[in-house]
Amino acid sequence: MAKVIRNVMRTDDAIVRGLGELGVATVHEAQGRKGLLASSLRPIYRPVKISGNALTCEVAPGDNWMIHVALEQARPGDVLVVSPTSPCDDGYFGDLLATSAMARGIRGLVIDAGVRDIATLTEMGFPVWSKAVSAQGTVKETLANVQVPIVCAGCLVRPGDVIIADDDGVCVVPTENAAAVLEKGRSRERMEEEKRQRYAAGELSLDVNEMRAKLLQEGLVYVG
Amino acid sequence: MAKVIRNVMRTDDAIVRGLGELGVATVHEAQGRKGLLASSLRPIYRPVKISGNALTCEVAPGDNWMIHVALEQARPGDVLVVSPTSPCDDGYFGDLLATSAMARGIRGLVIDAGVRDIATLTEMGFPVWSKAVSAQGTVKETLANVQVPIVCAGCLVRPGDVIIADDDGVCVVPTENAAAVLEKGRSRERMEEEKRQRYAAGELSLDVNEMRAKLLQEGLVYVG
Amino acid sequence: MAKVIRNVMRTDDAIVRGLGELGVATVHEAQGRKGLLASSLRPIYRPVKISGNALTCEVAPGDNWMIHVALEQARPGDVLVVSPTSPCDDGYFGDLLATSAMARGIRGLVIDAGVRDIATLTEMGFPVWSKAVSAQGTVKETLANVQVPIVCAGCLVRPGDVIIADDDGVCVVPTENAAAVLEKGRSRERMEEEKRQRYAAGELSLDVNEMRAKLLQEGLVYVG
Amino acid sequence: MAKVIRNVMRTDDAIVRGLGELGVATVHEAQGRKGLLASSLRPIYRPVKISGNALTCEVAPGDNWMIHVALEQARPGDVLVVSPTSPCDDGYFGDLLATSAMARGIRGLVIDAGVRDIATLTEMGFPVWSKAVSAQGTVKETLANVQVPIVCAGCLVRPGDVIIADDDGVCVVPTENAAAVLEKGRSRERMEEEKRQRYAAGELSLDVNEMRAKLLQEGLVYVG
Amino acid sequence: MAKVIRNVMRTDDAIVRGLGELGVATVHEAQGRKGLLASSLRPIYRPVKISGNALTCEVAPGDNWMIHVALEQARPGDVLVVSPTSPCDDGYFGDLLATSAMARGIRGLVIDAGVRDIATLTEMGFPVWSKAVSAQGTVKETLANVQVPIVCAGCLVRPGDVIIADDDGVCVVPTENAAAVLEKGRSRERMEEEKRQRYAAGELSLDVNEMRAKLLQEGLVYVG
Amino acid sequence: MAKVIRNVMRTDDAIVRGLGELGVATVHEAQGRKGLLASSLRPIYRPVKISGNALTCEVAPGDNWMIHVALEQARPGDVLVVSPTSPCDDGYFGDLLATSAMARGIRGLVIDAGVRDIATLTEMGFPVWSKAVSAQGTVKETLANVQVPIVCAGCLVRPGDVIIADDDGVCVVPTENAAAVLEKGRSRERMEEEKRQRYAAGELSLDVNEMRAKLLQEGLVYVG
Repeated sequence: MAKVIRNVMRTDDAIVRGLGELGVATVHEAQGRKGLLASSLRPIYRPVKISGNALTCEVAPGDNWMIHVALEQARPGDVLVVSPTSPCDDGYFGDLLATSAMARGIRGLVIDAGVRDIATLTEMGFPVWSKAVSAQGTVKETLANVQVPIVCAGCLVRPGDVIIADDDGVCVVPTENAAAVLEKGRSRERMEEEKRQRYAAGELSLDVNEMRAKLLQEGLVYVG
Repeated sequence: MAKVIRNVMRTDDAIVRGLGELGVATVHEAQGRKGLLASSLRPIYRPVKISGNALTCEVAPGDNWMIHVALEQARPGDVLVVSPTSPCDDGYFGDLLATSAMARGIRGLVIDAGVRDIATLTEMGFPVWSKAVSAQGTVKETLANVQVPIVCAGCLVRPGDVIIADDDGVCVVPTENAAAVLEKGRSRERMEEEKRQRYAAGELSLDVNEMRAKLLQEGLVYVG
Repeated sequence: MAKVIRNVMRTDDAIVRGLGELGVATVHEAQGRKGLLASSLRPIYRPVKISGNALTCEVAPGDNWMIHVALEQARPGDVLVVSPTSPCDDGYFGDLLATSAMARGIRGLVIDAGVRDIATLTEMGFPVWSKAVSAQGTVKETLANVQVPIVCAGCLVRPGDVIIADDDGVCVVPTENAAAVLEKGRSRERMEEEKRQRYAAGELSLDVNEMRAKLLQEGLVYVG
Repeated sequence: MAKVIRNVMRTDDAIVRGLGELGVATVHEAQGRKGLLASSLRPIYRPVKISGNALTCEVAPGDNWMIHVALEQARPGDVLVVSPTSPCDDGYFGDLLATSAMARGIRGLVIDAGVRDIATLTEMGFPVWSKAVSAQGTVKETLANVQVPIVCAGCLVRPGDVIIADDDGVCVVPTENAAAVLEKGRSRERMEEEKRQRYAAGELSLDVNEMRAKLLQEGLVYVG
Repeated sequence: MAKVIRNVMRTDDAIVRGLGELGVATVHEAQGRKGLLASSLRPIYRPVKISGNALTCEVAPGDNWMIHVALEQARPGDVLVVSPTSPCDDGYFGDLLATSAMARGIRGLVIDAGVRDIATLTEMGFPVWSKAVSAQGTVKETLANVQVPIVCAGCLVRPGDVIIADDDGVCVVPTENAAAVLEKGRSRERMEEEKRQRYAAGELSLDVNEMRAKLLQEGLVYVG
Repeated sequence: MAKVIRNVMRTDDAIVRGLGELGVATVHEAQGRKGLLASSLRPIYRPVKISGNALTCEVAPGDNWMIHVALEQARPGDVLVVSPTSPCDDGYFGDLLATSAMARGIRGLVIDAGVRDIATLTEMGFPVWSKAVSAQGTVKETLANVQVPIVCAGCLVRPGDVIIADDDGVCVVPTENAAAVLEKGRSRERMEEEKRQRYAAGELSLDVNEMRAKLLQEGLVYVG
């Protein structure tokens, strides 16, 4: 039985935007190296950087019917996250759906499948992370679920979780951890800024991070 | 026995250009979701959009000899379509061949193999869709056929068929269907333009396409 | 036992820069179609073109500790070449390490694994050729060797060999062959320039390269 | 913070064994075409058919330390399910660990990574489904979680869910659905047995499944 | 418009069986190294060796409806050749369809997609060459063509062409060439038998094939 | 300039056979987790276990000429190691070459490309590890080197190095390390035998390897 869950709670947008500013690499580190979607998902244009609440959508292989259903559930600030129930590279999403998605306030699309019309999507400034670019069209025959927990590109994504996506890829933060991850990420950023200045001044990371003792202890040998 | 077929009929250039304006996704839909080459073929630069008559060329693995032969058969408005007789990612084509191809009026290259000198090809504005970028050179030892029907990236391409290629990939239209596909594609484009305006105004595709009844009939359930 | 070889001899920078100007495709041909790293290595931005002395670095899967060690061995003009001891797509290198690398005079990174922070690396103008883009962080637990001969993307690279990298990919030239390859590459370039002019003027490569007799001898048949 | 959850509830073994008898294809259909792990997981020998309670284990890339930890949590009838926190093909598991696993009553291993010593594992009759066969050894340096929900080969697997694995691949059934899926699967099997006999007798599936009317309605045309 | 072509001419079974005895490698050589389907198609069990007339069947991604339609068109001695209209690894075919196919006299299945129930298919002795093994089920919603020319795994296959399949893979011979290819293949086999005896007796292929002169002429140097 | 190095020194066969008895996983560990060829190389039949001296052979893509040249250099106890100069899956080697190879005392083939006639090779008991099975034939046009150091499947292999290959894959041991690796491997095997008996008796690897203290120190938490 296919179902659509309405009125899913969203994460507070101040937190969502804060995580977006940190970017994928920092957020992923800040939450303990978890939540990274597979690196097979790549942005259709660069540079790009967004964050938003996950609006999740299952689709059948070669069938984009449920994306139409999902768009009705969208709220401004959502990121549409689409995963086929079996692997498929077809072009599920193009400029028409993007027009509708932008009109509904959706910030971008993350899809473990294909996308098309990428020249127009790029002109429109509608960001997409996909596994493939393919003009292959889809049918509208088979139901699936909207706004339920899904696995997308190897990660569990629940409706209302925070999606962060940039040139490096896509990361998901569970809504209940979002505030804490934001705080840790900001600390990390400050710490990295300090290191960056020392590195730029020519200091070695071996010294900045005090690695020499452990290297010797593990048995590293210098020759010549 | 390897052969070169001369004086192949071309498709009328008004039709070819019309299909090119529609682009790959629209043409592919207009001819019933057929004729799309595998999505592993990607353009070396973007945005890009061409169309032309297929000038077909088989090559042996690691051997680009027949491309030299094919260039003599070129007419202005052709797109060179190259397929190796067994899979190969070598760089069959570079800036020298592109110089010759441009001088002969060839509009671009579609190759189910590798290409090289892509910085120069990009500067020259010579478009290429390839499976790989590789500097690996090739030999000139083994014959193959020119201007015969070939399978390229999973599709049958016959000399004189229409090739449409853009950021989304590559599509082939049999010459005998080209006029009809152009007409259908233009209708489709008009219909899409109408939808685009309604979507941009905030209407849902569920309503624009009258999908709600079928969704309920199939058993979709809304919760919450 | 993991070791770091210090004070490795470098190839003369005039030769290194000369090879860089020729570019990957020409150098690869000039040294007899050898030394090309796998085409799975792609630049994070384009156009880009560098050359330098190989600073080699083994890493454990998911562990970037030895890159920190390698940076101390860098000399201005080096290109860092990193290969994991078993296949891994993790993001071993980001903007902090790039800051340090640039401060040490490193001209770029070639890595048979993943890289992250590519938006910042692109802004910084620090070139990278990698197998993947991934925000997946790494640990610092396991030793490996620095400045020893390594196999990277299918090629043997020794410390002090010349790395040439551009939009087409990456090539390595053994230091002892570098001067001879530079000379051959320059000859080749001159010869290609002549051909380019003849091709641009409409001459066929069949004639410029006198291929017609051999084609007939091999049995090529023209029809129609 | 890495943790080990002890005393996880298991699914009743009568249900587990019943699902195992049905096999992967039937169970997957019976639960609505869900729960199939990616087809990249293949058995090391065939024929093979098992079922059991999922004992879940995260591992770091190139690091099998947590498998040692997981073995202590095993109960007879468990199937060990291992997923690396980033993709890795290393050989995490060999004949020594299999000896221990068999002694603890584990029925088999499902791992989205590599395995080694497969000749010995085959002789021992210890079944494994893996993404790769690789002798590449691993370290014991990095913690991860045991008996928490994990994503393995694209599917969510929770401790105590039912794993069914055979020549076709691997399927997971959530413990709360297990009894219902078993019942549906058995109905399906009876229905299939009826069909099988009619097909074997030469009847066409078009007639047995009454498909002709819908085919005509959709517009299928017979020619010749 | 989807169509089914009835009453397609078959190739004479004496020729078909003769080609089958020669096997894929010999037939492929005998017809000039053409007609080999992509090596991604692998048999589900070995050893295996069949030949037959191609019964061609297009299918939509994730939809096996047309296989049911195709079975009605089968004649004893056919090999079912199935290709999805866009790439898909789902399990389109299992033991029920195999039961029906065997009852109709079909000798095996070649499918550029997935197959399931392979333990049962192996027991039944029904041979399959597929791109994947997957229990993922399919729907029955979308029409496609039966007994029209299709591209399967990179090769054009027309109804009534001869399919040869064994442990090495799958080859197609156009019906109009079948008799001539059989004759050439048998000559080749006799010639190979002679060489085999000379090789087994210790003679070198350099001498048996008189390669030494050409090697020297090309510049091969012996050292040491 | 292509060359053949004659009269390469071999490693003592007692050492070679000893390493072969240990098998790939043990040898790979014994030499510090080095020398493993990529796991994309798989045996054509199982179980299988060989060792021998590397007889190295470069080949051009789609061209097996140099394998004929290499066979003349074979000595009893050699393993032929073949690597194409750019990636290629063609079937370079079949039953005729295997007949000659066996007559020359070659123990098996390791090839980073394709092989054919695998049914016959299996009957003959001639072991092969390859990247692909493909009936695609090759030409004899282009020279390459025999008995020089080559990179095969990501590893450096020098003539006379020891090749160990079994169900797990392929490993290379430099001749100068062979005796030491054999000794370490035998120690390792004795140690593993002890562990195996303790594991079989139900002892946990956490205890046998005294891992508990380090786990706690790293912060592992037990819950429930």
